[in-house]
Amino acid sequence: MLSVKEQLEIISKGTDEIIGMEDLETKLKKSIEESKPLTIKLGLDPSAPDIHLGHAVVLRKIKQMQDMGHRAVIILGDFTGMIGDPTGKSKTRKQLLREQVLENARTYKEQLLRVLDPEKTEVKFNSEWLAKLNFSEVLSLASKCTVARMMEREDFKNRFTNGQSIGIHEFFYPIMQAFDSIHLHADIELGGRDQRFNLLMGRTLQKEFGQESQAVVMMPLLEGTDGVNKMSKSLGNYIGIDEDAVAMFNKVMTIPDNLIIKYFNLATDMHPKDISKIEESLSMGENPKNIKMQLAKEITTLYHGETEAKKAEENFIQVFAERQKPQEIRAVSIEETDDILSAMVKGKLCASRSEARRLVLGGAVKINDQKTTDFKTAVKNNDIINVGKFKFIKLVHRA
Amino acid sequence: MLSVKEQLEIISKGTDEIIGMEDLETKLKKSIEESKPLTIKLGLDPSAPDIHLGHAVVLRKIKQMQDMGHRAVIILGDFTGMIGDPTGKSKTRKQLLREQVLENARTYKEQLLRVLDPEKTEVKFNSEWLAKLNFSEVLSLASKCTVARMMEREDFKNRFTNGQSIGIHEFFYPIMQAFDSIHLHADIELGGRDQRFNLLMGRTLQKEFGQESQAVVMMPLLEGTDGVNKMSKSLGNYIGIDEDAVAMFNKVMTIPDNLIIKYFNLATDMHPKDISKIEESLSMGENPKNIKMQLAKEITTLYHGETEAKKAEENFIQVFAERQKPQEIRAVSIEETDDILSAMVKGKLCASRSEARRLVLGGAVKINDQKTTDFKTAVKNNDIINVGKFKFIKLVHRA
Repeated sequence: MLSVKEQLEIISKGTDEIIGMEDLETKLKKSIEESKPLTIKLGLDPSAPDIHLGHAVVLRKIKQMQDMGHRAVIILGDFTGMIGDPTGKSKTRKQLLREQVLENARTYKEQLLRVLDPEKTEVKFNSEWLAKLNFSEVLSLASKCTVARMMEREDFKNRFTNGQSIGIHEFFYPIMQAFDSIHLHADIELGGRDQRFNLLMGRTLQKEFGQESQAVVMMPLLEGTDGVNKMSKSLGNYIGIDEDAVAMFNKVMTIPDNLIIKYFNLATDMHPKDISKIEESLSMGENPKNIKMQLAKEITTLYHGETEAKKAEENFIQVFAERQKPQEIRAVSIEETDDILSAMVKGKLCASRSEARRLVLGGAVKINDQKTTDFKTAVKNNDIINVGKFKFIKLVHRA
Repeated sequence: MLSVKEQLEIISKGTDEIIGMEDLETKLKKSIEESKPLTIKLGLDPSAPDIHLGHAVVLRKIKQMQDMGHRAVIILGDFTGMIGDPTGKSKTRKQLLREQVLENARTYKEQLLRVLDPEKTEVKFNSEWLAKLNFSEVLSLASKCTVARMMEREDFKNRFTNGQSIGIHEFFYPIMQAFDSIHLHADIELGGRDQRFNLLMGRTLQKEFGQESQAVVMMPLLEGTDGVNKMSKSLGNYIGIDEDAVAMFNKVMTIPDNLIIKYFNLATDMHPKDISKIEESLSMGENPKNIKMQLAKEITTLYHGETEAKKAEENFIQVFAERQKPQEIRAVSIEETDDILSAMVKGKLCASRSEARRLVLGGAVKINDQKTTDFKTAVKNNDIINVGKFKFIKLVHRA
């Protein structure tokens, strides 16, 4: 096992804030002495099973701790999810939600294990222990927490001040999250800055229940490819961990230069020492494009392995850096009767003739590198059609 | 059954406030049409099983409704009682508390049924349904209620403003009380003005659960015999319903005249029409002492029956009104060697010679109707000693 100091260096990399640093040091020391891994907890809302590099920031941090020997428990907040809708009281409704949650969880688990070490990862539903609490136990838990403390939470405070309603049950979200930590005897909980209040509640209630308080490791938000907004699916600035190697590599290459180091810190498992060297070479005048290619290859390797990453790199060099046609242009066989629209549909550049027409009219389509906006343009054998920068097909008449 | 109007007249007698008067009218109308009694609810804290006329105010009101055909359910808040102590988590502790609660409840029930009609009274513990609620049900209940609404409760508001802590579990007291109403489908809930918030919560949550809202009948506090403070055991100004007929009669005779009508309204079941007549005769110049004797007899009859009440009245007339010696003076045999102090101890006028001495020096003791402050005064056969207005003994030398 690495020394406390070495472990702290890796844990600290890229973090926003660590609360309970002394507790963390004590825990790491004890863990080394007793050869006993720490329990690292992460709670996730099971409603969004489509993980991108933004979500993966905390997962990568956990992976780094797993590599140092610790074990992770991922909590899928199905209990919270099921009671999310205050009016959904009927049994039938609940049963349905339960199935949804289980289905989401399967997908989620698959994706989580593309980052985490399956040998050192447990995935649990918090309904396992929360659903069993009775009224008396709930009240005893609630008694450990004051209204004033709860109202310190930014959103509660603001809503109360602005006369927006807060349901009493909402007070139980932080309490439930804290109880998860108690139940698991969590040593470290990870989360984003927006989780600060809930993470601290875990520390407070663990102490109330006679446990050592968990250390809290907060990770910053990762900006998306636009370099401005938080990475998010709805903003379209995301890099999904399920995207193919070429798309992943190319998307990383579109981030602005000022995010390169942040991406190294938050989206790779590279050692802080190596990142420092890169930072140094950047400041010595190294071309950011080269560093960014190293970043793109590093990230792509994490999710697709070295061979695929190498191919994606070569593809990038050809398509973008060299402004050449990509090596792999798909051949699409067409009939003599096909026009540009039906050829595009056959080549899967779009889903329908009407979409193809819109793309042509919108100026997104080139034939043999010449833009055309005429959707009646004829096509012939060996024509290369491309839409945007990424999609190329070569037409081949059937023999 | 009495008409809606007649019932409302009796229900309204002496009340502080009725909330949901329209609901109450509708309920009474339906009850008459369907010959179905209304369910009247009263929640009691099972920790104080020693009922005085102040507590009995709400019970008498319920008895009046029982006499009109309705049924009462008395809730003993054992669930609330058991979780009252937030730190009392251990099983053993709870078990003990449970036994205490059950023991208290037995005494309580006995006393309740000295006022209420046993045929139309059910006594229930709210743990019967509250203990069974699981976390999910608790949250669903809590979701029906906002923090802002809760903070309208006077004591919560004040404590929050003054920086005094409020445990989240305390929010559940009104919610639990409301859930009792839902569980029982209560039509009317009784309580004091201090219960206003909790009683209204019942109305709100019943509606949320698709029930008709209960009407709320609030009774005023009854002043004690001092005429100033709320009747209370600790202030010593109370008339217990367990006191004997003579003590009860005599204590009622000590209340100030301005409370006579209030006592008729709150401490007897006399019809409002008859009380009006009494009020009228008072204003026409009738001697308040006579009216108060009617009140004392009315109240004593309620708890001891007519024969005992008559005896108590006769006793009062002799001891107080006629300023004569009471008929029943205990004979106490003494030796020739006894002085006034030992005679008082033997006669149980006090517990010790030193207490006897203090009483004599304080001027509280008479021999043969003559006050004496000399604790060396000699006593002889047939002397009558009295302390205050109530305690008389007659000394008899041993033969």
